[in-house]
Amino acid sequence: MKYLFVVAVFIVSLLVGCMGGKSEKYQSRRRTSKHVKEEIADYADIAQDIINLAVYGKAQNRSYDRLGLFVDTVGNRISGSRNLELAIGYMYKALQQDGLENVALEPVKVPHWVRGEESAMMLEPRNQSLAILGLGSSVGTPAEGITAEVLLVTSFEELRSRASEAKGKIVVYNQPYISYGETVQYRAFGAVEAAKVGAVASLIRSISPFSIYSPHTGWQDYQSGVPKIPTACITVEDAEMMGRMASRGTKIVIRLKMGAKTFPDADSFNTVAEIVGSKYPEQVVLLSGHLDSWDVGQGAMDDGGGAFISWEALSLLKDLGLRPKRTLRLVLWTGEEQGGVGASQYYELHKINISNFDVVMESDIGTFMPLGIQFTGNDKARGIMREIMKLLKPINITNLYKPAEGTDIEYWMQAGVPGASLLDDFSKYFWFHHSQGDTMAVQDPRTMNLCAAVWTVVSYLIADMEEMLPR
Amino acid sequence: MKYLFVVAVFIVSLLVGCMGGKSEKYQSRRRTSKHVKEEIADYADIAQDIINLAVYGKAQNRSYDRLGLFVDTVGNRISGSRNLELAIGYMYKALQQDGLENVALEPVKVPHWVRGEESAMMLEPRNQSLAILGLGSSVGTPAEGITAEVLLVTSFEELRSRASEAKGKIVVYNQPYISYGETVQYRAFGAVEAAKVGAVASLIRSISPFSIYSPHTGWQDYQSGVPKIPTACITVEDAEMMGRMASRGTKIVIRLKMGAKTFPDADSFNTVAEIVGSKYPEQVVLLSGHLDSWDVGQGAMDDGGGAFISWEALSLLKDLGLRPKRTLRLVLWTGEEQGGVGASQYYELHKINISNFDVVMESDIGTFMPLGIQFTGNDKARGIMREIMKLLKPINITNLYKPAEGTDIEYWMQAGVPGASLLDDFSKYFWFHHSQGDTMAVQDPRTMNLCAAVWTVVSYLIADMEEMLPR
Repeated sequence: MKYLFVVAVFIVSLLVGCMGGKSEKYQSRRRTSKHVKEEIADYADIAQDIINLAVYGKAQNRSYDRLGLFVDTVGNRISGSRNLELAIGYMYKALQQDGLENVALEPVKVPHWVRGEESAMMLEPRNQSLAILGLGSSVGTPAEGITAEVLLVTSFEELRSRASEAKGKIVVYNQPYISYGETVQYRAFGAVEAAKVGAVASLIRSISPFSIYSPHTGWQDYQSGVPKIPTACITVEDAEMMGRMASRGTKIVIRLKMGAKTFPDADSFNTVAEIVGSKYPEQVVLLSGHLDSWDVGQGAMDDGGGAFISWEALSLLKDLGLRPKRTLRLVLWTGEEQGGVGASQYYELHKINISNFDVVMESDIGTFMPLGIQFTGNDKARGIMREIMKLLKPINITNLYKPAEGTDIEYWMQAGVPGASLLDDFSKYFWFHHSQGDTMAVQDPRTMNLCAAVWTVVSYLIADMEEMLPR
Repeated sequence: MKYLFVVAVFIVSLLVGCMGGKSEKYQSRRRTSKHVKEEIADYADIAQDIINLAVYGKAQNRSYDRLGLFVDTVGNRISGSRNLELAIGYMYKALQQDGLENVALEPVKVPHWVRGEESAMMLEPRNQSLAILGLGSSVGTPAEGITAEVLLVTSFEELRSRASEAKGKIVVYNQPYISYGETVQYRAFGAVEAAKVGAVASLIRSISPFSIYSPHTGWQDYQSGVPKIPTACITVEDAEMMGRMASRGTKIVIRLKMGAKTFPDADSFNTVAEIVGSKYPEQVVLLSGHLDSWDVGQGAMDDGGGAFISWEALSLLKDLGLRPKRTLRLVLWTGEEQGGVGASQYYELHKINISNFDVVMESDIGTFMPLGIQFTGNDKARGIMREIMKLLKPINITNLYKPAEGTDIEYWMQAGVPGASLLDDFSKYFWFHHSQGDTMAVQDPRTMNLCAAVWTVVSYLIADMEEMLPR
């Protein structure tokens, strides 16, 4: 998950908190017509069949097992890498072997940033190796590294107030963790702000509420007209250590070496597969997750889980012989971590058919215990969604939140297409996010079963109702 | 904390569980004479003064601040290292500057194992770097490393049943985590058991219930007559990954490189300081933690916290002008992680005075929220301890458990000297133990204040009562 939409995630989590965990199901229920309510209620048996197959039946643990095989085979998958190419080829074959229709690769140009060798060594007050992860798009250092004294700050405000001390220094940010959405600005803009006041590099405390000495990577943005300086994340532990040292007046010197390089944009693909609609094949319910990841860990959580429960939805329907009236289209995005690059190009290519896009769905905040669906759409559409969520009563996951989240579906939602995303208990998500800890050990087959059930019931219902969602 | 005594810790934690968190305070209270009860109850004001100073007064956060300065200045401190030498010199000065008496260094010979460069690369089914930490006392590999196929097992039983497959292989243990005490046998004896069946190296899943891709080190034991093979811990995540691969029948090949070396035993010291007793100066209440650590993280938890609350106890009494009747002796052990080496030599040197050792105390399972005191001693002594614990009512930490724990005090307890150790909420202790995550970020100044208060009240009371604890 990229940082652009995490502010919204943060706000949603606040809202969820304020609502005491309650959804909107008690609000404005009269907007949905009796006819539509009955139409949806008639799907209770089908919803139960989907749940039975996904959670208790022969499909249970399948998305987990498939994901394990995939990430163990391919590893992590950063844009422009050989691993991502392998991953796309792997999925292309797997979706065909699964019997899905119109399996296709849609060409995309993606950024090609390579980390290279990297290290940071504290030289004063004593020699101490510091774990780092360079940030996506960062420039490298000269081969001999950059050796400079540290200016330690805890906020952009402090940096600005001490701007005169920054020249020639390595700025180390030891900002407190408030929330991902609020705090990630330090990762995104730490280098630019440090460069503006003359720093030669910046090191940023990893954006995580908990750490076992784990650095976290992620994208960062340079600004035109501001010098590009090398930038990396350090661990929470080392940021706090240097914070203590600085508060004691101890001089800190670091040698930073980064072999990071940006190559010309690389060829990649969005991976697509469908169950073609029986009655309105030109109308599309889009179900998605992103296939690319960072170049650490296995990318099992971000966003292997989201991609594989989306695939699982199509597999479950196929197993049950359910072909909805509209086309259910699975899209596995490429280049999400670099700012929704694959999704942006997909939107440009397909927006001419925007009136046929019924809903765009993405899962990209983990596949932990599902809490419900986040939805963006007008009141009438929300009323329909509330009725659909009632079908998930057997597993007690009936809550509807707003808005929907997802870097890759944002373009469509901004253009007025209803959007839906899976909300889960992501309280530990940022412990692992963009770190070596993003592996299969984070995943739980049982919660993936539940996520898949929710995802499938919702997408199938929208795809099979007589009318498209109102917008 | 070394592994020898963790089985006992495990049993205690079970006992605590069974007792529903209750102590023995409701049992056999009649054994303690009215006279002794009154004697102890008379200390209520002093106990309150100690608590006030440690928890609410000007000494609050002092042990935390001192520890932060110490570990930030010195870093981690493995036996035989320059860092440990620096640490001992640092403490020698600090204890003198603190105004303590008879500050002394008692020479000890300690093992001198050096990790060197180390790496593990999975070559099949794909190239993937694996995080490792070589285990203390392990031999290294040839410079070109050891490249071999993996035999993956989940238990010693499985290894024995597949002994014929082990020859020339790297045995990877993916044993489930049951408890530290139970599971650490794989770290301790994994290499020996693998070598017995012809393996060329062993890699062991880190002994931790939770991981963010963090390998954990620790001591391991070779056996005479069994070839010494290189051995290291891998992360929980990689052990599970290879477990999945093996269960799919996938061939795994690893290249292991370890530059580990054992040098001749090095010079080190137990660091000692006292408050000399006013009435029975030859009688000793020994208060301790170990100063050495592993060569990762900062050794802030294992056992910086225990060492520094022990120091704090003497500082608090000095601040309050409290000189007990018996001598309060602080001992900061060296070479604990190699099997209580400093403590063993201390015992040999001082056992001639064993009748003057009133109680031996050690804190080495963290300084999280304190739960009470673990005590080893006869029933009469326990009765006295229960009365002493009542003085901690103001902070509601009055529980008495058994037995006492501590590699470094075990020699004395086995010889019949009463022992006491601090029990805290160590539920996350093994998340960080022997890993890069053992840093100041684990420590909380408030719980350290409480630990110091408990530790000080208990040690002062024992040192100041008219009679030594019965044995």
